[in-house]
Amino acid sequence: MTTNMLTEQELDEIYTFAVQLGKDAGKLLLEAAQLRFAGSESTVLEVEEKDSSVDIVTKTDEDVEAFIKTSIEAKYPHHKFIGEETYSKGASRSYLISDTTPTWCVDPLDGTVNYTHLFPMFCVSIGFIVAGKPTIGVVYAPFLNQLFTSCRGRGAWLNETQRLPLIRSPIPPMPVNAPSGCVFSCEWGKDRKDRPDGNLYRKVESFVNMAAEVGGRGGKGGMVHGIRSLGSATMDLAYTAMGAFDIWWEGGCWEWDVAAGIAILQEAGGLVTSANPPDDPETAEIQEVRLGSRLYLAIRPAGPSKIETGREGQERTVREVWRRVRELDYARPGA
Amino acid sequence: MTTNMLTEQELDEIYTFAVQLGKDAGKLLLEAAQLRFAGSESTVLEVEEKDSSVDIVTKTDEDVEAFIKTSIEAKYPHHKFIGEETYSKGASRSYLISDTTPTWCVDPLDGTVNYTHLFPMFCVSIGFIVAGKPTIGVVYAPFLNQLFTSCRGRGAWLNETQRLPLIRSPIPPMPVNAPSGCVFSCEWGKDRKDRPDGNLYRKVESFVNMAAEVGGRGGKGGMVHGIRSLGSATMDLAYTAMGAFDIWWEGGCWEWDVAAGIAILQEAGGLVTSANPPDDPETAEIQEVRLGSRLYLAIRPAGPSKIETGREGQERTVREVWRRVRELDYARPGA
Repeated sequence: MTTNMLTEQELDEIYTFAVQLGKDAGKLLLEAAQLRFAGSESTVLEVEEKDSSVDIVTKTDEDVEAFIKTSIEAKYPHHKFIGEETYSKGASRSYLISDTTPTWCVDPLDGTVNYTHLFPMFCVSIGFIVAGKPTIGVVYAPFLNQLFTSCRGRGAWLNETQRLPLIRSPIPPMPVNAPSGCVFSCEWGKDRKDRPDGNLYRKVESFVNMAAEVGGRGGKGGMVHGIRSLGSATMDLAYTAMGAFDIWWEGGCWEWDVAAGIAILQEAGGLVTSANPPDDPETAEIQEVRLGSRLYLAIRPAGPSKIETGREGQERTVREVWRRVRELDYARPGA
Repeated sequence: MTTNMLTEQELDEIYTFAVQLGKDAGKLLLEAAQLRFAGSESTVLEVEEKDSSVDIVTKTDEDVEAFIKTSIEAKYPHHKFIGEETYSKGASRSYLISDTTPTWCVDPLDGTVNYTHLFPMFCVSIGFIVAGKPTIGVVYAPFLNQLFTSCRGRGAWLNETQRLPLIRSPIPPMPVNAPSGCVFSCEWGKDRKDRPDGNLYRKVESFVNMAAEVGGRGGKGGMVHGIRSLGSATMDLAYTAMGAFDIWWEGGCWEWDVAAGIAILQEAGGLVTSANPPDDPETAEIQEVRLGSRLYLAIRPAGPSKIETGREGQERTVREVWRRVRELDYARPGA
């Protein structure tokens, strides 16, 4: 059995390599962060005098991406590499994932604002894509010492020992009245323009619909159990794979923000489709997300109940979310 | 030198006791959580059949509070004890903190929704109050292995080794254009009534003012660096003490949600005052928060800049927040 052109043995080897790469890169991130608080006072002062903390972060971002890229090129010279830093500096903005070449899709530092402020929700994100499908995912949050890993057919794992989702005896079904009973994960993002009906207001309207009491908001009130915003799309996806978040809804992410997280979530049994509701949300086919669409709705792994399969519960939840959220405007510049 | 009626040696002993109590209680929380995912399948199934996960959580909450209360009463029989579970079952709802008796103020499980869903942002919160002032704080988040501790005059610490705030060579001043550049921490809370100008809408209006681009929202746009919602007031305060969050603004918490967190934040050098803007936000004296007011605005520890002291930067930030937020309605039932 092969995955595209790779044998299972080759895939095993790539997985082992990717996990070690994630650990090493996360260590570099943490060491650079520690320079700012745990290093010798002279080191810290020297760095602080030369650069602002934002410059330090940018340099760390670039250094860690260069480390990951060099390591991959040395080991797998025929694979394609897409990284946030590389991409920002050139190339077209059309869809980046090729169907024909195995591709590494890497964010050396997801949760940059968190990293700048030393809030622990930052991570390195390494995805490996075969035939257009996220196949391996490695997410390492070194300040939390949380490592999320997956490879297609081999399960998704926390710290290599706890299988995801965490609760699996049995895996709970989606709540009967979802989104009620669900933890809803969402982000405010960077588009904060005070423009009537712009993304900021469409997001807020959606958040409030999900939050408000059942029956409120003209019947759109979702009374979710809680709303969480962590400032990292990758960590949002990892916690959805874990089962801690039931729903993640977001627009604006790029491929490297989500490739590894989607690989882990799908391998754990989660569903990922488009954030934007279709014209017929109640009946539309629920299509698998297109990596690079910039619009994501993720549902946690779900088990069956007495009345529906796990997939049916996830799809029911997707439709309930679509009924409450607005369409977001995050086109691809090149699309 | 004494703190109220306690000698420094007595305070040291109480601090040591409180830290160990927090570690032991956190271990109980994690063990109960692990029963749901890492225990033997038979154990898990047996528990799941008897109770819903909400019941399991309630029972854990009560068991851990009983453990903490019993331990304190055995060691310090003359101290007063206030716990969430004890309080919920009776007593008046007037201000609970006495000026005359040293008082333990305990939330055995803060972040209950997170705990139910196994999102790691839950913790035990143990505060010790002398002469009405939070004096010792112990916050332990066992799933993250993060222990925050403080005792007045002895510093605030992460995992007993890293002093808070983390960046302290030097401690950064508040940003010149705060709230721009700040990470803003806030919670959606439980009051989700769809009532015109109710707490839900006042909160959302405040969040949007803090989020929107500078110059937007009729000049109220704060363009904060990021907005975070963790679902735990105690963890919000702990990360503000760490310096990871610059501003935390919230209404509705009770004493046990904040006593330990306020102790830690104040010892780290943070400022805590009221969430609700006074009539004259630009000139009003910035008063120390009254524990039990249910309205909290916290600012991280700040160092001096070339033009102001750390305290001046904090007070400037308080006024900028007050200018952007609405008054919340969380009266004490008995007040």
